[in-house]
Amino acid sequence: MTQATKPLKAGTATFTSLSCKECGAEYEAKAIHVCEYCFGPLEVSYDYDAIRRHVTRESIQSGPNSIWRYKSFLPVATDTPIDVGTGMTPLVRSNRLARRLGLKKLYIKNDAVNMPTLSFKDRVVSVALTRAQELGFTTVSCASTGNLANSTAAIAAYAGLDCCVFIPADLEAGKILGTLIYSPTLMAVQGNYDQVNRLCSEVANTYGWGFVNINLRPYYSEGSKTLGYEVAEQLGWELPDHIVAPLASGSLFTKIYKGFQEFIKVGLVADKHVRFSGAQADGCSPIAEAFREERDFIKPVKPNTIAKSIAIGNPADGVYAVDIARKTNGNIESVSDREIIEGMQLLAETEGIFTETAGGTTVAVLKKLVEAGKIDPEESTVIYITGNGLKTQEAVQGYVGEPLTIEAKLDSFERALERSRTLERLDWQQVLV
Amino acid sequence: MTQATKPLKAGTATFTSLSCKECGAEYEAKAIHVCEYCFGPLEVSYDYDAIRRHVTRESIQSGPNSIWRYKSFLPVATDTPIDVGTGMTPLVRSNRLARRLGLKKLYIKNDAVNMPTLSFKDRVVSVALTRAQELGFTTVSCASTGNLANSTAAIAAYAGLDCCVFIPADLEAGKILGTLIYSPTLMAVQGNYDQVNRLCSEVANTYGWGFVNINLRPYYSEGSKTLGYEVAEQLGWELPDHIVAPLASGSLFTKIYKGFQEFIKVGLVADKHVRFSGAQADGCSPIAEAFREERDFIKPVKPNTIAKSIAIGNPADGVYAVDIARKTNGNIESVSDREIIEGMQLLAETEGIFTETAGGTTVAVLKKLVEAGKIDPEESTVIYITGNGLKTQEAVQGYVGEPLTIEAKLDSFERALERSRTLERLDWQQVLV
Repeated sequence: MTQATKPLKAGTATFTSLSCKECGAEYEAKAIHVCEYCFGPLEVSYDYDAIRRHVTRESIQSGPNSIWRYKSFLPVATDTPIDVGTGMTPLVRSNRLARRLGLKKLYIKNDAVNMPTLSFKDRVVSVALTRAQELGFTTVSCASTGNLANSTAAIAAYAGLDCCVFIPADLEAGKILGTLIYSPTLMAVQGNYDQVNRLCSEVANTYGWGFVNINLRPYYSEGSKTLGYEVAEQLGWELPDHIVAPLASGSLFTKIYKGFQEFIKVGLVADKHVRFSGAQADGCSPIAEAFREERDFIKPVKPNTIAKSIAIGNPADGVYAVDIARKTNGNIESVSDREIIEGMQLLAETEGIFTETAGGTTVAVLKKLVEAGKIDPEESTVIYITGNGLKTQEAVQGYVGEPLTIEAKLDSFERALERSRTLERLDWQQVLV
Repeated sequence: MTQATKPLKAGTATFTSLSCKECGAEYEAKAIHVCEYCFGPLEVSYDYDAIRRHVTRESIQSGPNSIWRYKSFLPVATDTPIDVGTGMTPLVRSNRLARRLGLKKLYIKNDAVNMPTLSFKDRVVSVALTRAQELGFTTVSCASTGNLANSTAAIAAYAGLDCCVFIPADLEAGKILGTLIYSPTLMAVQGNYDQVNRLCSEVANTYGWGFVNINLRPYYSEGSKTLGYEVAEQLGWELPDHIVAPLASGSLFTKIYKGFQEFIKVGLVADKHVRFSGAQADGCSPIAEAFREERDFIKPVKPNTIAKSIAIGNPADGVYAVDIARKTNGNIESVSDREIIEGMQLLAETEGIFTETAGGTTVAVLKKLVEAGKIDPEESTVIYITGNGLKTQEAVQGYVGEPLTIEAKLDSFERALERSRTLERLDWQQVLV
């Protein structure tokens, strides 16, 4: 453990610059995201010596009950970040799901109850909009598969920023309504996410707006590191043996990895080899395919899956995700839409957590990996549940059955109860046959 | 402040018995809820001297980050209650809503992000099911307007309890699906909540089930006290000047009051006169009517409002709610369905919080009270937001506008943006006219 001499002075930034992930070229920390020389993605650099000197487990624990307890590891200078209680979601020790799968130490990181809009995107948006304000933006924007739209619109409303959000026109009703309620300008683009994203890149070049996942992307993506920090802190300042997370652009995956590495680097946790496994839907699995075929590049695909929030056909950080899974001895798997729904039901029935399709994907991949012997029952394994099932109701409607409709009379209830018990017995007999 | 000598021994209960709220008759703490002599409701009694001796601000703060930090004030004996992270939801200092309404010290207690099912009901159900296990029940049940069904089904799934839930058949789709996903037995009763409730009373008398809001009601309702405790703790161990909460059965309102009184009684906060104001929908306002007409009894009504989660026509604790509003110099008001929707939009636009119809009711009543001069701008006022908007999407669909549908081309975007700005200008001119 490090011995902190004194806390950082108010308003002191620990991040120093942006640097290219490919060629290492350095840039001032402005609203840019692509290297001018090699077109590689830019990433935030920090002064880890300064962090090591000033940050301890105790200084973190005495911080706010939100992602901002890790402010020293985040790319903002202000001492008054936009804090709507985002982060510090429960890490649940699984009993019933673990038993069902035959695992001994399974944990569920539950961002289905993240604040304010019930997905991990609240983390990245809180960071991006705080940085947007520091950089002087008054209008913020994003290209989104839904959760990001909800989050950007909500947190912009709270912060009093103008907001224009772009989504594919065929999104789930809950995600559209869950954006409109905050009164942003909402553009529904006739096309898939990758087309929305390309349009937004053009708009970002033309308008002076802060696009959280385009020109603010280096700052934005750092927010996902908090999913690594929190798990380490919640496990008693220890890293797990294995994590399973969904893969969309691949950014979340790489940032959980970065978070763990940073905690090791500054001495907050002991060094440990953590295995990283990723989850995709069969209907959009370019990263899983690259992993399976042992390729170093991603072949873009046209998404066709109910797991819309992770349906990115041309994932920006796909190659980095493949690299991490490979070097940590993890896996990347994909599952069918049917398995995704079963994953949602399994998590709800055993743990009382209603997740969206992305979470169903993660649970289904967990199951698949366990059945294939790719997760050891003794490994401490953390699965990341990243969004709430109330947003993707269409996906499970028709699969979860119907209520038993009865009259408001005791005998009507008793007949229905008898019917349902008979059905359960029949189900059970079918299982036995 | 009290000086605690030592913490309570493991497994020590601070509650002693049940007693009748009307005649004071005492009962053993079993699964009963009505006085045998006078038919009054039973309530849990505590040994406040024991609590005063053992509980301090520090002992609470070092407890779990959930309602169970207040276990000494809750009617369970076990040291391993069912803890799914329920409670300790944010108390948000309002900036933009406060300014819009002309208030100086407005706070929002946000149970729209409560865990696990996004309403305050997770508090009462966590307590009820923990007590149900202590009393030996293996099947739990409830009569619900939706949120309670979600919560009972989810937490029962987590705890491995069998579950049968009763709802009115015409509930919102999100509340039905958000129950079915956990695989309980779900009975949709053709009738309103009051009819569902009557049927459940019959079932409770016949079957050996633990109905959280019938035979377990004395324990269940104590869970709402945590909404009082948390606000006091989050305000820095101080009570607010005024609270505004929705009224359904009236139980929540009376238990926030009880929570404040208990904290005063054991010396955790200074004594203070807190004003209690309640919110109902015009389409189901039996408590507001009794208050307005200065009656000491409730005239049951047939509910007809979009605010289904608070649509209880024959509210069990209505008279107690009227009494509290009256003696604290508060108010009880009702608002139209249109005002409820506007309340939901106002909260979302200004604070980034998407609440359900019950929360819209509370915001609309807050606005009405401010406009009528019934809340002083200098009063520290807390409004209770008790549920999430993703569960009542039907209510606002059609009122929040539509996305602007565009092609994935820059010029299509620019035309749409121009159109939307013209519309905004026109709206603005209409306002000026």
